[in-house]
Amino acid sequence: MFDGPLEILVRQLAALPGLGTRSARRIALHLLSARGNKLHSLIDALDAAAKSIVPCNICGNLDSTDPCRVCRDPARDKSSICVIAGVADLWAIERTGAYKGQYHVLGGILSALDGVGPDQLSLGALLARLRGGGIGEVVLALPATVDGQSTAHYLIDHMDGLDLHITRLAHGVPVGGALEFLDDGTIATAMKSRARL
Amino acid sequence: MFDGPLEILVRQLAALPGLGTRSARRIALHLLSARGNKLHSLIDALDAAAKSIVPCNICGNLDSTDPCRVCRDPARDKSSICVIAGVADLWAIERTGAYKGQYHVLGGILSALDGVGPDQLSLGALLARLRGGGIGEVVLALPATVDGQSTAHYLIDHMDGLDLHITRLAHGVPVGGALEFLDDGTIATAMKSRARL
Repeated sequence: MFDGPLEILVRQLAALPGLGTRSARRIALHLLSARGNKLHSLIDALDAAAKSIVPCNICGNLDSTDPCRVCRDPARDKSSICVIAGVADLWAIERTGAYKGQYHVLGGILSALDGVGPDQLSLGALLARLRGGGIGEVVLALPATVDGQSTAHYLIDHMDGLDLHITRLAHGVPVGGALEFLDDGTIATAMKSRARL
Repeated sequence: MFDGPLEILVRQLAALPGLGTRSARRIALHLLSARGNKLHSLIDALDAAAKSIVPCNICGNLDSTDPCRVCRDPARDKSSICVIAGVADLWAIERTGAYKGQYHVLGGILSALDGVGPDQLSLGALLARLRGGGIGEVVLALPATVDGQSTAHYLIDHMDGLDLHITRLAHGVPVGGALEFLDDGTIATAMKSRARL
């Protein structure tokens, strides 16, 4: 029955990650009921993002400048590269303010199941950056999953012969997490690498 | 740190109902990573909706034509008006296919707490339609909440003297539940066994 621009909009919204038909309908009605303003400012924001956001040619971050603001920032440590699977991970680390080096976004992780091989990721570009010299540390901040760890091992193999400190994020109990609900592997790792106070 | 077009987009998305900053970031990244296509088709859908969707002057439904397709449909029963709080409720009833009459969207319900009085709703327009003649039945499909029922009573008082069958949705609608989020089967059953007041 409803197959006009409204239904097309609902279908487009429902295809976004985390949204379904119900939430898409609710959003569409919200935008349309507010008569104009909200809808137009969302269109403007999407338009501005579509026009200005580009992937950084150095690290793969998304930003309105290329190189991105992390790569352009002279205050950041040029000798450390943190390797992450996606831009969301870069943002997550940036929000903590705990890292002041450079990044390299792989654009995914190796996965036999999903058919992701080395050619689909920006592994070559990373190795080229590392071979370019001036890099002392590589932080592998890849997911603590089987695929994430295979990707880490692939990288470690290919960094062989380069004079680098290779580190990974510490495993342990998440801050605020209850021991009771943690998996055994995490507890065992946290116990083994317990820190002196 | 990130206060460019990306951050503006995330803020716009996070303000939509049902979304928070995390889901907004995820959607923004999804749109931007897919390089162009998804972002542009969403912009096009929003643009088309913004340009073409208007409220129906007769019933208050949102559609790309005015009068809306329900009001224009010659196959629908012109002698029955179903009164609903919002457009989402109209859509919810339409999806069941259990009602073949006309609608009237009030644009909310009376609420002392939220300061919604009769003047904020399209009650006058509804009463004018009813006094215009040719209407035999009014279905009050208002929320089964205190405010919804006060609104129903307000309408019943003001329809006094008009020769109308006034019905309401059958019980089956959970008390405190919003129509918009009900499953289609319950709405269909409630519509079929609507009771005469």
